[in-house]
Amino acid sequence: MSSPRPLDHNPLAEGLIDFKVRDPSLMVIFGATGDLSGRKLLPAIYNLMKQRLLPAGFAVVGAAIDDLDDAGFRKHASDVVTKFSRTQPLDPQVLQAFLQSLFYVRVDFSKLEDFRSLERKVEELDRTRHLGGNRVYYCATPPPTYETIVEQLRDGGLTKSKGFHRIVIEKPFGSDLTSARELTQILQRVFHEDSVFRIDHYLGKETVQNILAFRFANAIFEPVWNANLIDSVQITAAEEIGVELRGGYYEKAGALRDIVQNHALQLVALVAMEPPTSFEATAVRDEKVKVLRAIRPIQDGEVATSTVRGQYKKGWVLGEEVVGYREEHAVSPGSLTETFAGIRMFVDNWRWSGVPFYIRVGKRMPKRVTEIHIRFKRPPHNTFASARDLDPNAITLRIQPEEGISLRFGAKVPSAGLRLRNVSMDFTYMSSFLVETPEAYERLLLDCMIGDPTLFTRADEVEAAWTFIDPIEAAWRDDRPPLASYPSGTWGPPEADKLVQADGREWHRP
Amino acid sequence: MSSPRPLDHNPLAEGLIDFKVRDPSLMVIFGATGDLSGRKLLPAIYNLMKQRLLPAGFAVVGAAIDDLDDAGFRKHASDVVTKFSRTQPLDPQVLQAFLQSLFYVRVDFSKLEDFRSLERKVEELDRTRHLGGNRVYYCATPPPTYETIVEQLRDGGLTKSKGFHRIVIEKPFGSDLTSARELTQILQRVFHEDSVFRIDHYLGKETVQNILAFRFANAIFEPVWNANLIDSVQITAAEEIGVELRGGYYEKAGALRDIVQNHALQLVALVAMEPPTSFEATAVRDEKVKVLRAIRPIQDGEVATSTVRGQYKKGWVLGEEVVGYREEHAVSPGSLTETFAGIRMFVDNWRWSGVPFYIRVGKRMPKRVTEIHIRFKRPPHNTFASARDLDPNAITLRIQPEEGISLRFGAKVPSAGLRLRNVSMDFTYMSSFLVETPEAYERLLLDCMIGDPTLFTRADEVEAAWTFIDPIEAAWRDDRPPLASYPSGTWGPPEADKLVQADGREWHRP
Repeated sequence: MSSPRPLDHNPLAEGLIDFKVRDPSLMVIFGATGDLSGRKLLPAIYNLMKQRLLPAGFAVVGAAIDDLDDAGFRKHASDVVTKFSRTQPLDPQVLQAFLQSLFYVRVDFSKLEDFRSLERKVEELDRTRHLGGNRVYYCATPPPTYETIVEQLRDGGLTKSKGFHRIVIEKPFGSDLTSARELTQILQRVFHEDSVFRIDHYLGKETVQNILAFRFANAIFEPVWNANLIDSVQITAAEEIGVELRGGYYEKAGALRDIVQNHALQLVALVAMEPPTSFEATAVRDEKVKVLRAIRPIQDGEVATSTVRGQYKKGWVLGEEVVGYREEHAVSPGSLTETFAGIRMFVDNWRWSGVPFYIRVGKRMPKRVTEIHIRFKRPPHNTFASARDLDPNAITLRIQPEEGISLRFGAKVPSAGLRLRNVSMDFTYMSSFLVETPEAYERLLLDCMIGDPTLFTRADEVEAAWTFIDPIEAAWRDDRPPLASYPSGTWGPPEADKLVQADGREWHRP
Repeated sequence: MSSPRPLDHNPLAEGLIDFKVRDPSLMVIFGATGDLSGRKLLPAIYNLMKQRLLPAGFAVVGAAIDDLDDAGFRKHASDVVTKFSRTQPLDPQVLQAFLQSLFYVRVDFSKLEDFRSLERKVEELDRTRHLGGNRVYYCATPPPTYETIVEQLRDGGLTKSKGFHRIVIEKPFGSDLTSARELTQILQRVFHEDSVFRIDHYLGKETVQNILAFRFANAIFEPVWNANLIDSVQITAAEEIGVELRGGYYEKAGALRDIVQNHALQLVALVAMEPPTSFEATAVRDEKVKVLRAIRPIQDGEVATSTVRGQYKKGWVLGEEVVGYREEHAVSPGSLTETFAGIRMFVDNWRWSGVPFYIRVGKRMPKRVTEIHIRFKRPPHNTFASARDLDPNAITLRIQPEEGISLRFGAKVPSAGLRLRNVSMDFTYMSSFLVETPEAYERLLLDCMIGDPTLFTRADEVEAAWTFIDPIEAAWRDDRPPLASYPSGTWGPPEADKLVQADGREWHRP
């Protein structure tokens, strides 16, 4: 892994806000005409340009199967940016500069010749725009294409220029430990691990940094952040949407692989990790992977009692009647794919010994919310008779929809009696800073150009997560526990409640 | 001291809000036509009646030198309640019932005969209203009268009825250790210590309970509430007013005896005390007195470097030009009385070893504010380079003007960089509960009737406080340190800043 770079080489870690990327570079987007590129990448690049954060000469080369030229791609880009940019209305001058930096090469991923054409185009831009041979290759394409793209990049001569070559891929990173290792090997045959940027778009948000800053830039939380004082941790990642048009993909994935393996376990790692020596990529990722490796494996015989799998039936969400999962587009009428996963797990280390981590992720739940709820033990002694009725202290790290932190505590009700009631102190990033949080992809694209992989997932993290997930997935395929169901618009099947009730606890209601 | 009463005998501790006083009783107010009675006591009794919290048959006997009858006293009471009640407009029915429960006896405190008349009146009311001989004697009179009143109560036969006899006195409780002990002896010759209710009206607010509930009804604050994690504690009690018409009294008192000896040291006790076994008077006061006794005495030779005394000069407060202390009514033009006191002290016990407590109290400061500011140490390691610029964590317990709690911590500024900034989570009782806090005196009068002395100061607390204050007072009388001065409308003399700066700290700006 990378050795720590000097801090002056990492303006992010130095806390500069108006930094620019030091080295010029060029970005090739594979799948440039696709959904991700249109909704996220091109608008992010427009907004980065608007904030003057991009290096001089920066260019984007769109690469896709569509038969377009530069002008056609620019027309497409203009349309999607107009539609999806977070800043509106568009600035005509910025838009003009943005479009002028876009280029297009038609590429059939199976044809080496097309990659050679791409290399010629990239080389020309490199030369004329003084980009130093620095290139970011962004695979905004389905995972099965990664291997082909990587190999064609090598064979087409696209990794030979004198500058840096980085590759960006989107989750899922494999579908089990074996396939994840294969993917890593494929990537590492061409790219150094430090040059592989695995994006978990949930974490591309400021979440990673916010959680770590909250925990480690403050002296008062770490002393209570352990098994002596924490009763349990609950992680909820709920969506109100169903699978929408992703049924084909989702049928093969399910909630466990789609969300738990990456997003939920990353949140476990962030909330449970030891303090890193610095906010440098290696230090942070070393600590995260230590947590993932410390998660107690759920043995085959325990999967039925430690996990819950569920599938949504028809119901009502946000006032609208919706169909069940098996009625969704591209879903089998007899599908056994889970749209809800609930897991009780333990992190077997000194800090977390005996503290259950409860995870629940699901679609078609009452609302979209992602949060980490840290529930503390009760005070060791009830000084106040009425304290018996209080809920114990809790800190909730809310990740979406509105990122913030909430601290629940007991206070006296102002009155003649000594009555206590739960109250909370709240903090939201939005209301405290009065700035709009940039889109996750703006941050992530910049990090790729700078070469800071802190917010991205390292190969060993991916593998440690699959090591935990695989035995659960295997038991589930063997129908242990049986697939439960829940009406759309509820917090999952009753079995999920029983999972925590068996330990004498309740789910926090977000 | 009293043994713990069964909880069902203490509705306050049981958290009932609409409780009533169990035993009927009668209250005699000495100085019933005076300022305290008019501004606070009579309006409080009216509002208690409005809330139906008073026992059936409850009556007030006003006792003062003025030549009034019941009707005249009722007229006076009607006037002051109309003017000073916190609830407006008055409820005519409640007012009527309130006035009908008021009686008056003219009493010259020096005349035993007058006390005998008082006893006859009280005895008659006791009999006709079925009050069980229970009596609360409230001395709303200057401290020099206490001895006379106490002795005349005894000699006039007012402490012989079969019910309880309690006495309520207002601070100051002596002017040094010797006089405080004398006062205690005078009181205890007639009343059991459990029946002596020493009111500190600052603490009559909900402050005592709020601080203790915050600390001990929650599990997450106690673990960080000690010298391992706390850097220092600052207690500020600032008033923007000058001495007003109290110059005569104040000349003899000064800030040290007027505020530090009672209010400020009580706050030290509340913030520093160990958890009491229960919220029962003996348990709470035992822990408070332990803190007061653990305060390291400031030796004669250290007073000049550990304390600051100041006196306000003319200046501007809240946009208005005001005169200096020596120009105030009834103040000597060459007065050396301090209107500002600053003290650095230590609580020499395991929990607080080495943690400085800084106290500053003063008149004619920029605003009225009382707060306890608990400043934590910095994190042991700067994970984030930019954390160097953060202020350390702090918890501020705000007592007035608006009672609340504020937690300062560092969070990431939402942006592309990793910039940290101090933010705060805030909680205010008013906005969280949307109820108006009752007047301090309502609570205190009820506690006297119930016989719960938790919020009142016990004799040994008073004496422990004077034990700490006396050597400082002695050095100050010897002009060590010299009297400093400060313009009205500032946070005290420069010497106060130097007191904390000498330790590498700064005063928190409220």
